[in-house]
Amino acid sequence: MLERTIIQQRGFRNIVANGAVTGFQLHLRNPNYRGIAGSLIDGVEIVIDGETYAPHQSRYTLQGRTFTLEELRASTDVRWQLDEDAVVTVATPGGLTAGTHHIEVAVHLRRPYIPEIAGPSVFRAATTGTIVPTANTKGLKFGVSLYSYSGDLYTSMTLKDAMADIADLGATGIEILGEGNIPGYARPDTQWIDTWHTLLDQYKLTATNYGAWVDTAMWRDRDLTVQEGRAQLETDLRLAKELGFTSIRPKFGVISPELDPHPIWQPAVEQVLDLAAELDIVICPEIHSPTPIKHPVTQAYLDFIERTKSDHFKLLIDTGIFQTAPVDDGHEGFEGKKRPPFLEPLAVPMSDLADVLPHVHFIQAKFFEIDDQLNDLHIPWNDIIDTLHTAGWNGWLSSEYEGRREPYRGRDQVRRQHALLRSLLLA
Amino acid sequence: MLERTIIQQRGFRNIVANGAVTGFQLHLRNPNYRGIAGSLIDGVEIVIDGETYAPHQSRYTLQGRTFTLEELRASTDVRWQLDEDAVVTVATPGGLTAGTHHIEVAVHLRRPYIPEIAGPSVFRAATTGTIVPTANTKGLKFGVSLYSYSGDLYTSMTLKDAMADIADLGATGIEILGEGNIPGYARPDTQWIDTWHTLLDQYKLTATNYGAWVDTAMWRDRDLTVQEGRAQLETDLRLAKELGFTSIRPKFGVISPELDPHPIWQPAVEQVLDLAAELDIVICPEIHSPTPIKHPVTQAYLDFIERTKSDHFKLLIDTGIFQTAPVDDGHEGFEGKKRPPFLEPLAVPMSDLADVLPHVHFIQAKFFEIDDQLNDLHIPWNDIIDTLHTAGWNGWLSSEYEGRREPYRGRDQVRRQHALLRSLLLA
Repeated sequence: MLERTIIQQRGFRNIVANGAVTGFQLHLRNPNYRGIAGSLIDGVEIVIDGETYAPHQSRYTLQGRTFTLEELRASTDVRWQLDEDAVVTVATPGGLTAGTHHIEVAVHLRRPYIPEIAGPSVFRAATTGTIVPTANTKGLKFGVSLYSYSGDLYTSMTLKDAMADIADLGATGIEILGEGNIPGYARPDTQWIDTWHTLLDQYKLTATNYGAWVDTAMWRDRDLTVQEGRAQLETDLRLAKELGFTSIRPKFGVISPELDPHPIWQPAVEQVLDLAAELDIVICPEIHSPTPIKHPVTQAYLDFIERTKSDHFKLLIDTGIFQTAPVDDGHEGFEGKKRPPFLEPLAVPMSDLADVLPHVHFIQAKFFEIDDQLNDLHIPWNDIIDTLHTAGWNGWLSSEYEGRREPYRGRDQVRRQHALLRSLLLA
Repeated sequence: MLERTIIQQRGFRNIVANGAVTGFQLHLRNPNYRGIAGSLIDGVEIVIDGETYAPHQSRYTLQGRTFTLEELRASTDVRWQLDEDAVVTVATPGGLTAGTHHIEVAVHLRRPYIPEIAGPSVFRAATTGTIVPTANTKGLKFGVSLYSYSGDLYTSMTLKDAMADIADLGATGIEILGEGNIPGYARPDTQWIDTWHTLLDQYKLTATNYGAWVDTAMWRDRDLTVQEGRAQLETDLRLAKELGFTSIRPKFGVISPELDPHPIWQPAVEQVLDLAAELDIVICPEIHSPTPIKHPVTQAYLDFIERTKSDHFKLLIDTGIFQTAPVDDGHEGFEGKKRPPFLEPLAVPMSDLADVLPHVHFIQAKFFEIDDQLNDLHIPWNDIIDTLHTAGWNGWLSSEYEGRREPYRGRDQVRRQHALLRSLLLA
């Protein structure tokens, strides 16, 4: 699907020729109600942060072919369809700075069936877009969780769109929710599985972590047994393997306000450790606010590692535990006045992270809001990246946007987060 | 794609059993960020116009199977996936009245991984939905033009969604824009054509009218020749035939403020009349505001019919010519302060319509806004339907929503228009 606004977030980037940044590109949706011949496009004026780029300065790419404005006006065999975007390439040495920019466009079309007296047909739009810089990742790997696109997926965004977005912002990993992003879960059809692998190849993405649940309170009259919990884990481990994932995060039901997991977790997990080793999938319990690192629940996971000596059971850190300021919006499904405990800022110290990093397999880069100046209002990314570097940690940081679920906001915010993280690596 | 809001417009309907209306149905999107087992659904409370229907009163249909709430809570093998809707069926004799209703829902889910202290997980939503009554169409045929979904199509709505929407509101005809709704126009691939026919069958829809353009000012330095205009018409006639359409509306470029079509129209059309007859496709110029019925442009079309004696050239009436009040929003692409002429209310008298009805093949049921009481603010539907009845006219009325292009507004307004038109037929 195309984005609703004329100006598409996906595809806003600097372009490089012979090793130098020579300009930038912007993708646009046809703003008219019909597709038109390329010759009826009268040019696009673009204004970035107040600087105007005239229609003649740009090149126009339609249906895979690139034209000057004069060539486009004279063209006979190219179209701007409603379901295809046009790419406008603006030559400007050095391109645009990393970060957010105010973008305005005026798309000039000719409509022969409208009398000249009605004036020219100009479609205007404005938005903010983010340029994600390229930067050496210094051993870190960057991915995105489909959780970031909750609400957008299946309403304005297909799986293919999500993968295109992720690849477009320079990430190379994709994290999914097994019960959520796999149509026909827990038995997707062969065609879907084939498409999944084809899309991974197409967008050069690596399947990273697979979110799973063990819903111990599945029924109202009894809890899951150890055998049922084990069976759920086996199902997810095998499906994760089939889809190319290398870790799963099982979220067990909890039995206390401190989020103690249901006691079946230990025997259920222990019974699948051999299978996890055979499939080479790491099982990662999630350390998530309101549970900090120095806490009996986390300690129980560390004790389990110590006792079983398994190298297929490690920690997953959700960066919400490092949150320094409260967040009061974005969480749906909670009634009542009180802020849910997991939205209270825990501000876990970096030294605690450093202590457990040897046991950390995966990091969910949870965040809520990044402003126009690329400041994260809640999560101290500079400290986190520093700590990871100092320790030489080299796993995945997977974006998990959890702010307000306004349409397209997750997509925009994930771009901002990657621009922020990459900028920190450049610094 | 699913609609963004939890409450889906599509599928809101009364249900009939043994010839009596026994209740209504509502489709819902899973409001959580993950798919869940059916047993974790704790019921949906529905409030219609202030009247509450408790969770236990309803039946729940998931993945094609229907459950009572107790059965759902005890279920072991059904899920509410993120990409699938749930259907809630409420038993209430007589169902709901035709027209718009205020709908509120509270979806109760159990989330075992959230501590009980956080309270129950309740997802609330409210919207307005429209019940379209069933009514004898008294010889008229009802369709929808994809133009109504401009902006939504390709961003939050696929062709299949559009067809599902059209069928759901009880229409049986689909009108398209050739240059707009056919991917790869003017040479769609075989797979797309096959899918098109499959979807027509699936949704029991008839292909009605195909909108075409002859862009006489295609290039800036010269106009199209007669031969080029004829070739364009041939392309569209053949493609329309391949897709099962029975009329095309060619919109020629204009050469005057009165919207006189470019003079190539007569020879170009005359040269394809034999082809139109061979394909049995009626060519319909559109009588569109600011051109009324008593006007030289319309008269030229009538003269053409008289002269050629063709029964494959007839008029298409756009009901915007009957507009009784001005509309100042919704038209994109027009610059300057003045209201575009075609938005001035022409208020063409019904007697003019009656005079030309023998030559009218198709009616585009243009409209801009229908309020919560099913009043159209601009178009006198009662008069139009009366005139059509009195004349015994039995062609297609094809919805053409042209109001504000806010997301989903066209979909909602088209439902309202069909509820309004059907209600007039019941009266």
